Amino acid sequence: MALSGIEIRRPDDMHVHLREGSQLAHYARDAAASFARALVMPNTSPPIQSAVELRRYLREITEAAPGLVPLGTFKIHPKLSHDDVAALKEAGAAAGKYYPRGVTTNSEDGVAEVDAAFPVFEAMERLDLVLCIHGEMPGAFALEREERFLPELEKIVAAFPKLRIVLEHVSTKEAVEMVRSLRGGVAATITVHHLLFTLDDLLGDGLDPHLFCKPVVKRPGDRDAILQAALSGDPRYFFGSDSAPHLRAAKEARRGAAGVYSMPVCMPLLAGLFEEHSSLALLENFVSRFGAEFYRLPLNTGTLRIERSEWKVPDEYHGVVPLCAGQKLNWRIV
Amino acid sequence: MALSGIEIRRPDDMHVHLREGSQLAHYARDAAASFARALVMPNTSPPIQSAVELRRYLREITEAAPGLVPLGTFKIHPKLSHDDVAALKEAGAAAGKYYPRGVTTNSEDGVAEVDAAFPVFEAMERLDLVLCIHGEMPGAFALEREERFLPELEKIVAAFPKLRIVLEHVSTKEAVEMVRSLRGGVAATITVHHLLFTLDDLLGDGLDPHLFCKPVVKRPGDRDAILQAALSGDPRYFFGSDSAPHLRAAKEARRGAAGVYSMPVCMPLLAGLFEEHSSLALLENFVSRFGAEFYRLPLNTGTLRIERSEWKVPDEYHGVVPLCAGQKLNWRIV
Repeated sequence: MALSGIEIRRPDDMHVHLREGSQLAHYARDAAASFARALVMPNTSPPIQSAVELRRYLREITEAAPGLVPLGTFKIHPKLSHDDVAALKEAGAAAGKYYPRGVTTNSEDGVAEVDAAFPVFEAMERLDLVLCIHGEMPGAFALEREERFLPELEKIVAAFPKLRIVLEHVSTKEAVEMVRSLRGGVAATITVHHLLFTLDDLLGDGLDPHLFCKPVVKRPGDRDAILQAALSGDPRYFFGSDSAPHLRAAKEARRGAAGVYSMPVCMPLLAGLFEEHSSLALLENFVSRFGAEFYRLPLNTGTLRIERSEWKVPDEYHGVVPLCAGQKLNWRIV
Repeated sequence: MALSGIEIRRPDDMHVHLREGSQLAHYARDAAASFARALVMPNTSPPIQSAVELRRYLREITEAAPGLVPLGTFKIHPKLSHDDVAALKEAGAAAGKYYPRGVTTNSEDGVAEVDAAFPVFEAMERLDLVLCIHGEMPGAFALEREERFLPELEKIVAAFPKLRIVLEHVSTKEAVEMVRSLRGGVAATITVHHLLFTLDDLLGDGLDPHLFCKPVVKRPGDRDAILQAALSGDPRYFFGSDSAPHLRAAKEARRGAAGVYSMPVCMPLLAGLFEEHSSLALLENFVSRFGAEFYRLPLNTGTLRIERSEWKVPDEYHGVVPLCAGQKLNWRIV
């Protein structure tokens, strides 16, 4: 018997960058081709930090891609009051995103000391909003930033016992293990590029700017630990693509921007990876259930069909070089 | 008292890539501005593997840059006979370069198994030629390739007790320590970029394709060990820039080429670094004596003057983005 394709409940991408301006419509439509819902990150320029901005942003996305339900987020800033946070929730925020200062794209205005954000976390806990964390310690050596951030995560978890927290795009064995060791209500998102690639793919042969992201892909042992978590069936690990497009000229540059455009290939790559590990039956929970349940959302209705059919990934989408550009994949979205 | 400049014996660059074709003259002249002699690597396209090719190549360099004395090398291939090696020496070879297959630019035709090159090493030992080694294990994880190669180095050192050997462009603490632990007649070259930079500079903020090289810059502890070796006064560590230009378009690309163009800035950066560590008096041995003595060459006559004078590194030289492009340096070649 040969498998010709699978049908799964329509999935959620619990971490995605749709950007702003004229490119937004492209990115939102690419997302709609694979996902029913997407948790959209707020590090646009300028960032989403008020109810008015969030409403406008969600409307823009919905108008560009009516098939996609955007789940709102806002960028946490110490200036936000309880009322601001309540208004953001009312405007459609499912989560607030905490960026330590300077760790990734448009985070120069991030929070310098985590304690400064505690009043905002407290408001979020009371309002039952999810806290999404970019867990890297600014200034630490690049390969150690995530591990060095983990004590901060423990501190936040201890200080807000009812706050639901997601450590985003885990990239190390240490982060995977930390999340497993913490109380209920703490989860992690996993990207497809951290499941598949290591520093060898970024710089082992030539230098691949289109695989450069924050946190950077790491060692084979880290990738293996992330893969085990994704295949474990543990609901604390669910999918968030962290698809983060930059135009080709911003990547193939003297100072290349961080972010991987995985959206056009993430579901095909996941299907191939789960198949390779004889775990296709676990894919639906990873992409369509665990995230929704963590966010206390109804499961999506309808299905996504992924066919076992070879195709070649285009070299560009709307001026952006996608992950696996020019490569042949065995699975494709119908 | 303020130091306005230093004069040192004209230095040698014991590892440099001058390439071929229309760019060669530019690179050779840039080298002549800082160095009296340069050991020129043979991984041109096609590579230097015969006496005829080496003679032609050395003549080209001398015609382009009469102020620079090129020290020849050839690319080791198992097919080379004792007579071939003798003819290469006669044609001006000071060393043969061993590249494991696939480890760097134009090494696809490198040697697959080190044992296959042993007859060539034997000829070199008898002819008293130096063996230069790109010490990385192909296929190993990028950050571990050098360390994983060290047992091969030990094997070569043991098999050819009289062969002079240079482990080129050391990039790890382990390699620095290994060279210190081996018999006399085994040395290492050190580049300016491995003395100054780590992975943080390559990928900690944006991605810098112009700092991408093989072996890749590593951890702070590795850089510190290399710096200690350079400042130790131990004659087994001497300067080789591994300056390796690629045109901008080949670096800021979908698959960026490996190599740092440090030639225009290496002596100013070394002066600044040695000054910062109160070790300016040690610079001359590192760049003008230890290498020459290892290669059994007379010391250069004449001096190079390096002034304490601020300048801004140009963004490009002949279509190549140099190390520290656009940055201000405190020392300059007169």
